[in-house]
Amino acid sequence: MVHFTDRLIAAIRRCGSPVLVGLDPRRDSLPEPLRPRDTGDVWAWAQAYQQFCCGLIDVIAPLVAVIKPQMAFFEHLGPAGMTALAQVVRYGRQHGLLVILDGKRNDIGSTATAYAEAYLGPAPPSSWGADALTVSPYLGDDSLEPFVQTAQARGAGIFVLVKTSNPGGKRFQDLRVDGGPLYAEVGRLVESLAVRTVGQGGYGAVGAVVGATYPAQLAELRTSLPHCWFLVPGYGAQGAAAADVAGAFDAQGLGAIVNSSRAIIFAHDRPEYRQTYGPRRWQEAVEAATRAMIAELRAATPAGQLPRD
Amino acid sequence: MVHFTDRLIAAIRRCGSPVLVGLDPRRDSLPEPLRPRDTGDVWAWAQAYQQFCCGLIDVIAPLVAVIKPQMAFFEHLGPAGMTALAQVVRYGRQHGLLVILDGKRNDIGSTATAYAEAYLGPAPPSSWGADALTVSPYLGDDSLEPFVQTAQARGAGIFVLVKTSNPGGKRFQDLRVDGGPLYAEVGRLVESLAVRTVGQGGYGAVGAVVGATYPAQLAELRTSLPHCWFLVPGYGAQGAAAADVAGAFDAQGLGAIVNSSRAIIFAHDRPEYRQTYGPRRWQEAVEAATRAMIAELRAATPAGQLPRD
Repeated sequence: MVHFTDRLIAAIRRCGSPVLVGLDPRRDSLPEPLRPRDTGDVWAWAQAYQQFCCGLIDVIAPLVAVIKPQMAFFEHLGPAGMTALAQVVRYGRQHGLLVILDGKRNDIGSTATAYAEAYLGPAPPSSWGADALTVSPYLGDDSLEPFVQTAQARGAGIFVLVKTSNPGGKRFQDLRVDGGPLYAEVGRLVESLAVRTVGQGGYGAVGAVVGATYPAQLAELRTSLPHCWFLVPGYGAQGAAAADVAGAFDAQGLGAIVNSSRAIIFAHDRPEYRQTYGPRRWQEAVEAATRAMIAELRAATPAGQLPRD
Repeated sequence: MVHFTDRLIAAIRRCGSPVLVGLDPRRDSLPEPLRPRDTGDVWAWAQAYQQFCCGLIDVIAPLVAVIKPQMAFFEHLGPAGMTALAQVVRYGRQHGLLVILDGKRNDIGSTATAYAEAYLGPAPPSSWGADALTVSPYLGDDSLEPFVQTAQARGAGIFVLVKTSNPGGKRFQDLRVDGGPLYAEVGRLVESLAVRTVGQGGYGAVGAVVGATYPAQLAELRTSLPHCWFLVPGYGAQGAAAADVAGAFDAQGLGAIVNSSRAIIFAHDRPEYRQTYGPRRWQEAVEAATRAMIAELRAATPAGQLPRD
């Protein structure tokens, strides 16, 4: 079984880019041609979400290595949405993409084991078939253990919230504990789990979520967590630019994947693409926005060292 | 629309007990007569989970006020499990129970809104129809805001993780920040949200998860968070007893609900009930265990002040 980060490195090298596309379907933003006629029918919406996400995958699979479906938007539609999500995960994997489910799950003891077994692993017995899952750290070290063990056993990974991209993240994450911020203390635990689970490429099965909206802390964490792969949100719609994520990478341009959701998947509605493409040609807008982000990261970060496709 | 905690108080007064039963279906623990013949069929397992949980509800609905389905075990079965979960929530509410979904969700911005809208509210447009949801605090104050607003608008509630019952919870929760532990700082935020959302009974729509396994901290938090209803895990299988939860209640025996999961739902397999009932008479074991816990709490806590049924 190939280690998660070694599969990740191979996929990133293959497409020459660390771009990660977040699949965040939202009713109000869906391109008009995809919206169901009966807007009160939750199964019709779930079908629309699935069609939208599979249409996204068709466009981006040749360009990027990883997708990150945001579970909340599928859960919003109840069991219908969860049924669509399972199809989206499967479709993504069939198209050669690695799939990170963004669920920010966690619990204690055998409940944490249930989450880990549910989501981790690209093949059965994993019910969902994801390559990785985002995980919340507040419950402490024993809550992470079942995720670490299941990830190791199944060639999967987890990304633990360390320093999140939202303004209010600092409310607890930046509190001083033992002379440093809480996020650094969480980072220390995550690094220790990464060291225990390291793959051939030098990165552990346990990575960290670190927001692009705090570039100084991102660069500082790159140094202090050398075995943690970073999942970096905050690019694009949340305001961070390529220069802000430069510090997330190692010297080879590896060690991080940079997420963009709205700015890519709803590109048809961005001022720079609206005139040219509009809602009917939404997939062309997605391709243009994806290529633009790839070029931005190549120009301004060590990811420019990656071979080009 | 009646405030969540006022509905909670009415339900607790009606049955005279603060007992909350956690619905944690696990394959290996399910009473033998309920296990599917084809143990590889995930839809058959989901059907078994639904049958088990509805059978639990049949027994406990006359005795307790609240159930707490643990989402992880349903998610473990993929979309099939989620379909069963929706039926269990509906069945519980049809039988007059309040339903707290234990999902420990959270995210930022519009994603947090999606979770809140998905789960909160006993009626449509909530997809899941729960009265309350457990929520994780690491993402900070702005991440909680959409839950607070949606809960207020829909007569629902949330329970934020403050001091959890697991041994490793102290890894971060007990770190010293500004002269006190982190959990007290999280508690301060939760109390401020409770004060903003208070119902007629004096409790806010925002409550706190505080483990029974730390009785001193539980009593201390009761004093410092006077407007927060407590959801108290850790009773029974996790080792806490009635005396440990006494400090969770106010003088009227209100302000807390005490969860037991395994010790009730799998009572047929406990040494004290196995001989008498066994797997075929599992529902009678559930009733006996529920009545025993109700009596224990009445004898040793201020919940003994509640009117008896």
